[in-house]
Amino acid sequence: MIINCVAYEKGHRLRDISTDEIGDTLGHPERFVWVALHDPDAAEMARFQEIFGLHELAVEDALNGGQRPKLEEYGEALFVTMHMVTLHGDEMETGQVAVFAGPGYVLSVRQHPSRGFAEVRRRCEREPKLLKHGPAFVIYALMDAIVDRYFPVVEALQAELESIEEQIFVQGTARQGLERLYQLKRQTMRLKHAAMPLSEAAGYLSGIRVPGLCRKTREYFRDVYDHLSRIEAAVDTVREMTITAIQVNLSMVAIDEGEVHKRLAAWAAIFAVATILAGIWGMNFTHMPELDWRLGYPLALLVMGGACGVLYRRFRRAGWL
Amino acid sequence: MIINCVAYEKGHRLRDISTDEIGDTLGHPERFVWVALHDPDAAEMARFQEIFGLHELAVEDALNGGQRPKLEEYGEALFVTMHMVTLHGDEMETGQVAVFAGPGYVLSVRQHPSRGFAEVRRRCEREPKLLKHGPAFVIYALMDAIVDRYFPVVEALQAELESIEEQIFVQGTARQGLERLYQLKRQTMRLKHAAMPLSEAAGYLSGIRVPGLCRKTREYFRDVYDHLSRIEAAVDTVREMTITAIQVNLSMVAIDEGEVHKRLAAWAAIFAVATILAGIWGMNFTHMPELDWRLGYPLALLVMGGACGVLYRRFRRAGWL
Amino acid sequence: MIINCVAYEKGHRLRDISTDEIGDTLGHPERFVWVALHDPDAAEMARFQEIFGLHELAVEDALNGGQRPKLEEYGEALFVTMHMVTLHGDEMETGQVAVFAGPGYVLSVRQHPSRGFAEVRRRCEREPKLLKHGPAFVIYALMDAIVDRYFPVVEALQAELESIEEQIFVQGTARQGLERLYQLKRQTMRLKHAAMPLSEAAGYLSGIRVPGLCRKTREYFRDVYDHLSRIEAAVDTVREMTITAIQVNLSMVAIDEGEVHKRLAAWAAIFAVATILAGIWGMNFTHMPELDWRLGYPLALLVMGGACGVLYRRFRRAGWL
Amino acid sequence: MIINCVAYEKGHRLRDISTDEIGDTLGHPERFVWVALHDPDAAEMARFQEIFGLHELAVEDALNGGQRPKLEEYGEALFVTMHMVTLHGDEMETGQVAVFAGPGYVLSVRQHPSRGFAEVRRRCEREPKLLKHGPAFVIYALMDAIVDRYFPVVEALQAELESIEEQIFVQGTARQGLERLYQLKRQTMRLKHAAMPLSEAAGYLSGIRVPGLCRKTREYFRDVYDHLSRIEAAVDTVREMTITAIQVNLSMVAIDEGEVHKRLAAWAAIFAVATILAGIWGMNFTHMPELDWRLGYPLALLVMGGACGVLYRRFRRAGWL
Amino acid sequence: MIINCVAYEKGHRLRDISTDEIGDTLGHPERFVWVALHDPDAAEMARFQEIFGLHELAVEDALNGGQRPKLEEYGEALFVTMHMVTLHGDEMETGQVAVFAGPGYVLSVRQHPSRGFAEVRRRCEREPKLLKHGPAFVIYALMDAIVDRYFPVVEALQAELESIEEQIFVQGTARQGLERLYQLKRQTMRLKHAAMPLSEAAGYLSGIRVPGLCRKTREYFRDVYDHLSRIEAAVDTVREMTITAIQVNLSMVAIDEGEVHKRLAAWAAIFAVATILAGIWGMNFTHMPELDWRLGYPLALLVMGGACGVLYRRFRRAGWL
Repeated sequence: MIINCVAYEKGHRLRDISTDEIGDTLGHPERFVWVALHDPDAAEMARFQEIFGLHELAVEDALNGGQRPKLEEYGEALFVTMHMVTLHGDEMETGQVAVFAGPGYVLSVRQHPSRGFAEVRRRCEREPKLLKHGPAFVIYALMDAIVDRYFPVVEALQAELESIEEQIFVQGTARQGLERLYQLKRQTMRLKHAAMPLSEAAGYLSGIRVPGLCRKTREYFRDVYDHLSRIEAAVDTVREMTITAIQVNLSMVAIDEGEVHKRLAAWAAIFAVATILAGIWGMNFTHMPELDWRLGYPLALLVMGGACGVLYRRFRRAGWL
Repeated sequence: MIINCVAYEKGHRLRDISTDEIGDTLGHPERFVWVALHDPDAAEMARFQEIFGLHELAVEDALNGGQRPKLEEYGEALFVTMHMVTLHGDEMETGQVAVFAGPGYVLSVRQHPSRGFAEVRRRCEREPKLLKHGPAFVIYALMDAIVDRYFPVVEALQAELESIEEQIFVQGTARQGLERLYQLKRQTMRLKHAAMPLSEAAGYLSGIRVPGLCRKTREYFRDVYDHLSRIEAAVDTVREMTITAIQVNLSMVAIDEGEVHKRLAAWAAIFAVATILAGIWGMNFTHMPELDWRLGYPLALLVMGGACGVLYRRFRRAGWL
Repeated sequence: MIINCVAYEKGHRLRDISTDEIGDTLGHPERFVWVALHDPDAAEMARFQEIFGLHELAVEDALNGGQRPKLEEYGEALFVTMHMVTLHGDEMETGQVAVFAGPGYVLSVRQHPSRGFAEVRRRCEREPKLLKHGPAFVIYALMDAIVDRYFPVVEALQAELESIEEQIFVQGTARQGLERLYQLKRQTMRLKHAAMPLSEAAGYLSGIRVPGLCRKTREYFRDVYDHLSRIEAAVDTVREMTITAIQVNLSMVAIDEGEVHKRLAAWAAIFAVATILAGIWGMNFTHMPELDWRLGYPLALLVMGGACGVLYRRFRRAGWL
Repeated sequence: MIINCVAYEKGHRLRDISTDEIGDTLGHPERFVWVALHDPDAAEMARFQEIFGLHELAVEDALNGGQRPKLEEYGEALFVTMHMVTLHGDEMETGQVAVFAGPGYVLSVRQHPSRGFAEVRRRCEREPKLLKHGPAFVIYALMDAIVDRYFPVVEALQAELESIEEQIFVQGTARQGLERLYQLKRQTMRLKHAAMPLSEAAGYLSGIRVPGLCRKTREYFRDVYDHLSRIEAAVDTVREMTITAIQVNLSMVAIDEGEVHKRLAAWAAIFAVATILAGIWGMNFTHMPELDWRLGYPLALLVMGGACGVLYRRFRRAGWL
Repeated sequence: MIINCVAYEKGHRLRDISTDEIGDTLGHPERFVWVALHDPDAAEMARFQEIFGLHELAVEDALNGGQRPKLEEYGEALFVTMHMVTLHGDEMETGQVAVFAGPGYVLSVRQHPSRGFAEVRRRCEREPKLLKHGPAFVIYALMDAIVDRYFPVVEALQAELESIEEQIFVQGTARQGLERLYQLKRQTMRLKHAAMPLSEAAGYLSGIRVPGLCRKTREYFRDVYDHLSRIEAAVDTVREMTITAIQVNLSMVAIDEGEVHKRLAAWAAIFAVATILAGIWGMNFTHMPELDWRLGYPLALLVMGGACGVLYRRFRRAGWL
């Protein structure tokens, strides 16, 4: 589905054009068309493939989701695929955005992701001085928008880690902690594989051997690269702390176990003493004078209670109870 | 065994030829022969070694299975070995495919693997425009087919991981989970060593210093490289999550242990209280008035039952039972 | 807020100037201005952006904190962001310092960090021979000051590790040890991400392809690079030993557990023997001659005490008690 | 001790010569001498150092064992040290082979290893077409032989791993499994350090900036490099699976522990019930009608047996027994 | 403190000179001075800084200990810092050696380390042919001496590891084993950080872009590099095996635990059976015929002993006792 198809001249919006008019614009040196597609079908893509002379393999990649983020050069043209990552509650959703750019045109193809790039277009149109750099600036603007949308995801992962950290040293929450840590690790891996390959592309477009199309936008792509480096550092920290937290969790389980054991041992000792005493006075010896005492029974109960009490206080002091 | 031996001209199938006619074709600039062998013996290979002037070491590698995936240049000629990986139930099967290519010829040698490349040949023949690129395109088509066949294997490993993940937080399945995780790790290692070295080859054939034979097919090999990168990312994720899952599994065992302990401790306490009470009323003191009560015995049983019940509810609330 | 705005000539302080006078100084080949800002607002930054012709993206980075440490070239100008790390008790605080430098000017922008760079300016003014190298030397002086302030932080982390190490082999401190180790790991990660990216910048400024501005100060930046390498080594050691200490801690928990178990087992055995003996003499057989002995009861108690004593000494010797 | 000293011309064995005749051969462009030494003393080495003009440091390295596998160039001459690894039962034995080669000569110096290279020499002499390449081909032949001898060692390690894997999920073998895994890890490390540095040498000799001596043998060294890569992959797999197996082993111990605990708990419960019942009927209440029943005792035994039986079957079903 | 100050000509010792005479020697093309200092004060260093024209930053580094091992070029001059490592019992001691070298002079500055380099000087003077290479050879000789002194330290660490390995599978030594492993890991880290950065320096001095001063001594520095590679491999092995040993230690603790548990369980079962039997015959049923048997009591004891005996043998066979 075509979302937009607009011609620009010297950084200013000219007007919406139909696909048939694109050909006329292409020859014009200071103009370019920016077409935005959403979930296009094969026929639509074939149409644009013909108009812009796109490479067959790139078109295939744009149609099939699930590509790896990457940058490819086909002669003067560039082809970028990026992953858009959004968090819906606990679920991480990934959508693909493919951008074709060449002299005089940009074609962005969005798959699945619900959130469009209308605001990006508006922002670009507000800065004709920058949009004058042409298709390369549009690539930058899209990439920048996508990378900016990674930050809330990273922050959500960091917040989740912090919330687990608070819980981890609290007794009796090990099982939940583990499940959450495992989920966190998985999501971190997914974000990493969605975001990180893009930094290679951004690095290339800000490097020395930059493609001709992007010669004037190097600083902008360096900025994107920099954002990706921050995300990488954050993801790295989350990943490493997750691993550590899983280990710590295991240790906490073992420590809690140890405390349960000590308590168990202490109570067992207390009960055992009472049992032995009851056993002793239950023996059938003929000559057990205390059995005939008037206060023998209450005394016996007192002795039993006393012995238990003494043990209880001892264990309490030793921190076993 | 010779499966096929076909001459092509300008990308179009000319006709099946016999091995004796190959020599005539070789001189022709716009023709090439594509020979497919399956489990050839030394004599057959020696024959083709002579016809195409193959290097002795490459021929040896094609005859012996168990080579590492690799790309080698011998002058103008290329020699590629690849691993085909198939899953039969739980077992991973690896077969070797070696491809010799030079100006005017492609010779593919298949070892063991049950599944042939007839469909690859048919697909190539349907696209003469591409097949016109000659032997390099045939290498691409074979490599692409082999790499495409890795995807179902990766997906099977991912599915296995997901199925283990569902099981991992369920009590009492730790032993099976471990065995499955260990197997998964092994298979992941095998797939990695089968698939990953190929990405070096694909990278080289899509790079700047590409061999002469493949000058026009760089984009195609870049596509293969890209697929391999996706496989690598997937394999990496499976590998890392497997490691984490093994650790989590250990923690789950420890947590389950802890719960068994608590239950054991709780029941032990309940039983111990009953035992002590029975012990007390089993003592032989002369003056134990309650022993002579008419309802002493049922009352005693009631007290014992009551004490146990109180403890039971307490432990229940504390989550120990 | 403008902290300082001073003009220098041939390494000597000329005088404090107002922002309006900066323009006059800029043309002068042997002079440069050094402006220090603290938490500037957007209007102030816009002012200086115009005066020095700073790049929009760099200005944005200087205004927003939370950048990654980095060095960027914009034509002849340099833009450096650095992290200042300070320890307040257990809390690690990070502040950003951004430095713009070009022919004839240095502009340092400090965010949050409480501690300023007045002493750095004084030190520079005491060495006009070095300050003669111009803006590059000022960058060095600031970077050197920031890196020097990492050392006390590293030492605090090392001291914390050593204090944990002393505690780790002491029984009963596992839980605290874990919490401290986890905090230490986190702080180490934070320091690493704050300090390490800077070493890339320092490496670049001391390398062969150094920017024109810094041609005469390579040795100085090499010295900074070297300090960062020492910090890296120290951080690395702390990080690796922390991981090991967490593992060792787990083992210590398990070992302590084992000892508690042995003790428990030993006491259980002792009590069980006494219980059995009491049980035996509590049996109701008609013919149990010892029951009628005059000293039967005290003897029985003696036997019970004796059996317990023997067991106790045995367990003691075996190290279980 | 001199094992052999033979002159070759155009790849054909000329004849055995004495050390005095070596000088005459050296000037001859199409001839070379191949001298094999075994555990030479300093005097012998000094002799050859003079004849071939070997570098002092290389001679020292050849005399002292324990060098790291490496390749060094001294002007036109090459110096290679390699490790020969053999398994004698469980013990891994390492011997050093040093090879000096230059225009017109090869000198191989073997330390300790029991197995010589007579077969390598015979194989070379059977292929004069290849031996014509001179000293470089001899280096290749020796390196190839040494690398080929790594394969049985790798296979032994793989077999050991597989045998441990079969055992690892069997109850009660954890201790042995651990000892074997630890040994396996050690041997793997030793093999790795013996074999892997050689791959650098092989890579260099098959690379683009190959030394003059080896210009015609690049493909051969690439083959050696390839074999080393296979060994590396295998060693890597063994190493990683060993680590995993150690972790799995720990988990298995914990799981087995858990099962012992459950069994213990189950039996304890059964015994406790019987004890309580006996305790109840051992109480001294006056009015316990069942005590006077004729069949009271057998009924009591029946109740006790029944209760135990019910519990037993319950635990059995729950998998605790 | 000045230890030595000697002038050399063409590799031969000329004579001891005073610091005032150094200036005269410097101009002479075939002469050089070798000055050795021990713990110099700032004034002494300032003196030599002036004489040899040393760079301020290098002088600072030589005065302050605790530098990282490194090589720096200042124009034609070289500055090397190295760490000397010695083991005193369990303690690892580190001392710094800094070497300044330029055309015509070498200045070595030793901090703390007790052991000097008199023997290095003597060895150099015995080989005028090598010492003729000038300051570069002196750097080599010092570096070689320092690296050679790492070997006993590495060997001590290896010996410690082996001694721990022997102990690790012995029951009841886990706690000590852990402490020793932790210490070993720490010392290994320290050695690594002391020795490894030097290999970068040695690599640079033996590489292609070697500084002018060292053009004729490349082979010698390659030898040092090689020694450092051996140390690196050894340190690596110790480090990895230490990690594995810590894991194995944990598993051994768990296994030993398991055995203690089984024993405990077995004894508990035996005692429980005896207790139940005593409880049964302690019941107060009127009709318990065996209570009136003449041999009832001894028979009961026999039954109890027998039951315990049978259980004991069963557990013995099952390996629980």
